[in-house]
Amino acid sequence: MPSPEKIFQIFNAYQQTASLKAAIELDVFTALAEGNNTAKALAERCQTSERGMRILCDYLVIIGLLNKQNGHYDLTPESAVFLNRRSPACISSVVKFLNSPYVMDTFKDVAGVVRRGGTLMGEEGSMAPEHPMWEEFARSMAPMMAPAAQMIAEIVGEGDWKVLDIAAGHGLFGIAIAKRNPKAQIFALDWPNVLKVALENAQAAGVADRYHTIAGSAFEVEYGSDYDTVLLTNFLHHVDTGTCENLLRRVHRALKSGGRAVTLEFIPNEDRVSPPAAAAFSLMMLAGTPSGDAYTFSEYDRMFTAAGFSRSELHPLPNMPQQVIVSYKE
Amino acid sequence: MPSPEKIFQIFNAYQQTASLKAAIELDVFTALAEGNNTAKALAERCQTSERGMRILCDYLVIIGLLNKQNGHYDLTPESAVFLNRRSPACISSVVKFLNSPYVMDTFKDVAGVVRRGGTLMGEEGSMAPEHPMWEEFARSMAPMMAPAAQMIAEIVGEGDWKVLDIAAGHGLFGIAIAKRNPKAQIFALDWPNVLKVALENAQAAGVADRYHTIAGSAFEVEYGSDYDTVLLTNFLHHVDTGTCENLLRRVHRALKSGGRAVTLEFIPNEDRVSPPAAAAFSLMMLAGTPSGDAYTFSEYDRMFTAAGFSRSELHPLPNMPQQVIVSYKE
Repeated sequence: MPSPEKIFQIFNAYQQTASLKAAIELDVFTALAEGNNTAKALAERCQTSERGMRILCDYLVIIGLLNKQNGHYDLTPESAVFLNRRSPACISSVVKFLNSPYVMDTFKDVAGVVRRGGTLMGEEGSMAPEHPMWEEFARSMAPMMAPAAQMIAEIVGEGDWKVLDIAAGHGLFGIAIAKRNPKAQIFALDWPNVLKVALENAQAAGVADRYHTIAGSAFEVEYGSDYDTVLLTNFLHHVDTGTCENLLRRVHRALKSGGRAVTLEFIPNEDRVSPPAAAAFSLMMLAGTPSGDAYTFSEYDRMFTAAGFSRSELHPLPNMPQQVIVSYKE
Repeated sequence: MPSPEKIFQIFNAYQQTASLKAAIELDVFTALAEGNNTAKALAERCQTSERGMRILCDYLVIIGLLNKQNGHYDLTPESAVFLNRRSPACISSVVKFLNSPYVMDTFKDVAGVVRRGGTLMGEEGSMAPEHPMWEEFARSMAPMMAPAAQMIAEIVGEGDWKVLDIAAGHGLFGIAIAKRNPKAQIFALDWPNVLKVALENAQAAGVADRYHTIAGSAFEVEYGSDYDTVLLTNFLHHVDTGTCENLLRRVHRALKSGGRAVTLEFIPNEDRVSPPAAAAFSLMMLAGTPSGDAYTFSEYDRMFTAAGFSRSELHPLPNMPQQVIVSYKE
């Protein structure tokens, strides 16, 4: 007779999300980094009951976000780097997007979503023009994307690049290229409410004088031409393959000869169930969009080929759920 | 640099709960047990889109509830036993309680719960008289408790027992003893709305003629006297240690000399963070009750001693998150 423990754990898995959200809201990880390592000290610092803090911290130990020894709590290597607000790699702001009602409400009726085969959130789901969730995305997801932005800037390399950043969001990918290349010109495309955030970030990074904006839908607005690089970061997964191909044709036309499309994506293996984080992303697209998906590399390769690109190559990123595809225009 | 993968997984853990709930609602596990093993066949059988079914099943593979080979899905040993509706050990009905708004809503604001040190759901939380959640509990949790009921009947052993079942719920614990001992008399105590369910179960088990009910609060109603055994199953965790002690004094008085209190409980080790399922239960009590908890064995031992019991012994149950404490009256 097997044990039902794993199943029981999944019935209760939502409690993990709720507890991490609470710990971030109460700033428990930062308080621990400051040296408050008992339930009593943490409760004083975070202005909570001691009883509640003790039970929350014990639970955070159980789910692997804290350690405990002799009644004293401590950060794990992961929580020290990614959840302490004073760590430069802190990603705790992503809770504001990943655990916002925008995203979580799409999971309220997964059975209904599976019946329909797409989101129940209106006809366009999160793809509706100027949907406010993309402003929240741009404001809260930047820290999560900073390492990928660095790696993409390295892949793009040195040059006087003219770069189009499609669905720029926080703008970090174009900004990283602009910082590395003093003559690069960046054209960021997004809805006007999101471009506000990208512009703030470009100003803060000191590259605003080479940062241009194109307001509108990536499927409709004019891109301009003669780009060396077009960035497609976490974007193609929102739509079906036919819509992707149409968009990639527009990207192909906007590139100069020898130019490259650089795509950052959740790309599962051909089995569609590994690696876990990339493959699981498919469910987010089912719940939140009419027909988006996490496509495999062979699917992307076919789409880029159909759009006129001569070849595509895959670049895994260390410690990231996403990978990069570089596609060449001859 | 560590990987943020585990943290990312916890941000999204609520999706595991939502997907298991959907798969049970769509009856995917039963459909698989019937031999439908492709997304297409499952979609036809469960009346869903094929796309939605494929993405849901892939996700169930990722979280370990299904296997996948060459595009064909299959049950795991756990899902075959516990999630196929036609399996005698199926526990899928527990979704109606564990993932009901009664339980899940208590996790809507864990930060608020930690600040306060107890539930935000009104003064008595789930302990309010005749709270409808206990009727749902009685109706949906019985399959989860069946193995423990068998094991407790074995621990109690053969005899013409007079048994008091406090907060009887579905009644399974008393009923298992009645079925094993043809002369046993069971007195089930609970709110009237819950006793309805216990009586139905006693009738179905053919022991209704020896099944008596005491309607009311375990903290107030008269118990009667001369019991051989008093059952305290999944009950003491709802209240603070002082309230437990007062209740145990009443239990002690109701027992005859040589009688036993039999307690089924989530009992963490002294570190309060292991084993995971028992220790994590503490958070459910923080979120759902004013002052309940998952108490350690040494805490229970102290409470029973204070109430007059001569000694308590711990019985682990195989494959169960709970353990049994047998406490003796001299």
